[in-house]
Amino acid sequence: MLLGKVAGTLVATRKETTLEGLKFLVLKQIDIEGQETGGYRVAADAVGAGLGEVVLYATGSAARQTKLTDRRPCDAVIMAIVDMLEVDGIVKYDKAKAEVG
Amino acid sequence: MLLGKVAGTLVATRKETTLEGLKFLVLKQIDIEGQETGGYRVAADAVGAGLGEVVLYATGSAARQTKLTDRRPCDAVIMAIVDMLEVDGIVKYDKAKAEVG
Amino acid sequence: MLLGKVAGTLVATRKETTLEGLKFLVLKQIDIEGQETGGYRVAADAVGAGLGEVVLYATGSAARQTKLTDRRPCDAVIMAIVDMLEVDGIVKYDKAKAEVG
Amino acid sequence: MLLGKVAGTLVATRKETTLEGLKFLVLKQIDIEGQETGGYRVAADAVGAGLGEVVLYATGSAARQTKLTDRRPCDAVIMAIVDMLEVDGIVKYDKAKAEVG
Amino acid sequence: MLLGKVAGTLVATRKETTLEGLKFLVLKQIDIEGQETGGYRVAADAVGAGLGEVVLYATGSAARQTKLTDRRPCDAVIMAIVDMLEVDGIVKYDKAKAEVG
Repeated sequence: MLLGKVAGTLVATRKETTLEGLKFLVLKQIDIEGQETGGYRVAADAVGAGLGEVVLYATGSAARQTKLTDRRPCDAVIMAIVDMLEVDGIVKYDKAKAEVG
Repeated sequence: MLLGKVAGTLVATRKETTLEGLKFLVLKQIDIEGQETGGYRVAADAVGAGLGEVVLYATGSAARQTKLTDRRPCDAVIMAIVDMLEVDGIVKYDKAKAEVG
Repeated sequence: MLLGKVAGTLVATRKETTLEGLKFLVLKQIDIEGQETGGYRVAADAVGAGLGEVVLYATGSAARQTKLTDRRPCDAVIMAIVDMLEVDGIVKYDKAKAEVG
Repeated sequence: MLLGKVAGTLVATRKETTLEGLKFLVLKQIDIEGQETGGYRVAADAVGAGLGEVVLYATGSAARQTKLTDRRPCDAVIMAIVDMLEVDGIVKYDKAKAEVG
Repeated sequence: MLLGKVAGTLVATRKETTLEGLKFLVLKQIDIEGQETGGYRVAADAVGAGLGEVVLYATGSAARQTKLTDRRPCDAVIMAIVDMLEVDGIVKYDKAKAEVG
């Protein structure tokens, strides 16, 4: 899995019929320091993520292993909202503080 | 999923028999600013995309999750035509305006 | 799918038994201008491609969606020979002319 | 498979229900000299890896081939803890010594 | 598939139980000139490859299409030992000569 920050939304009315009801979010990829890497990914949202939140997303066939995405042409899914990320003994991201600050 | 701009077409008469009837489009990859990144992908078209349109495409096994591509040796499919892309609160792409301008 | 130019062959007598009969070709990856990118891929040939031809190849699980590669440890397959590639309204590759020139 | 060094942990309370009970670890990718490459991956832990340990992780659909991760939206799993890595006849990593030193 | 040179071995006693009996080899990735690219991959060995040999390996779900790796959390498998590699009409690698020289 990789980390992303929810940065935007995407509207698409003409799409594969099986995609009806899926919400697509634009993720900016971030590294474990919380810095944006310049990459992005459009992912289906399986957890109700909000703009600005740091999330964990899975790609490939794993992205179809949710009720929402099962058998759909979807290759990336947000499967968790990150509360805290700790690397090398240092808290790199804390959702509680990030929302206040 | 990633964003692409439909840039061209590809004709191939000698191909795997199961590919008959699939239309292949050449996509230029674009980032969330709408800028071309230099990469490309050839994808099967499941939504009737037109030249110049910004689309969303899925890769890997997800690309076979449409009626059109089911069980075919296809690793990329256009599964949605983008109407609007909004990132960081700014509209980065608006199909309606793009077609006028 | 990505574009490749058939550049060579590979002989391997000691191999997984299920691979018997598969022909492996060495592909140089090319971009949509027809330029080599420096990358390569070894792919199973499902269409009888010849040296110098521009082909379309699929990777990942899609590469097993041909009779030839079904259930074999093969992650890339040539599934079409390109006749013509047109990008931005310009013919970037034309097999007929390429063979003459 | 690729090599990673367990560098941190990630807490996520809001997540896909099927992910309950999975432990996610933050891996720093390392090369065969044992040097960090700058990349990372968040992986489910199937072997009880500890901070600082060098591990082997699998990605893609392979990441669901453990009891722990079966049918879950998980695209990376730690499937082995490395005891020793020998490249070009030189021991590049020895867990026993790494733990002492 | 990609080309690799068997460069080393990896010992892991604590691992997913389904991995028992699999032999992992460290591959240095090489290009079609036979030059090392700096990348590596740890792959299960399905053909009895030896140190220094040039091999062909498959990644992704293809890596589970051997008896040895079936249903195991393995994302790379050596499925052939290269005898000869010919690119642009030039023999880039010849196992017979490589072993003598």
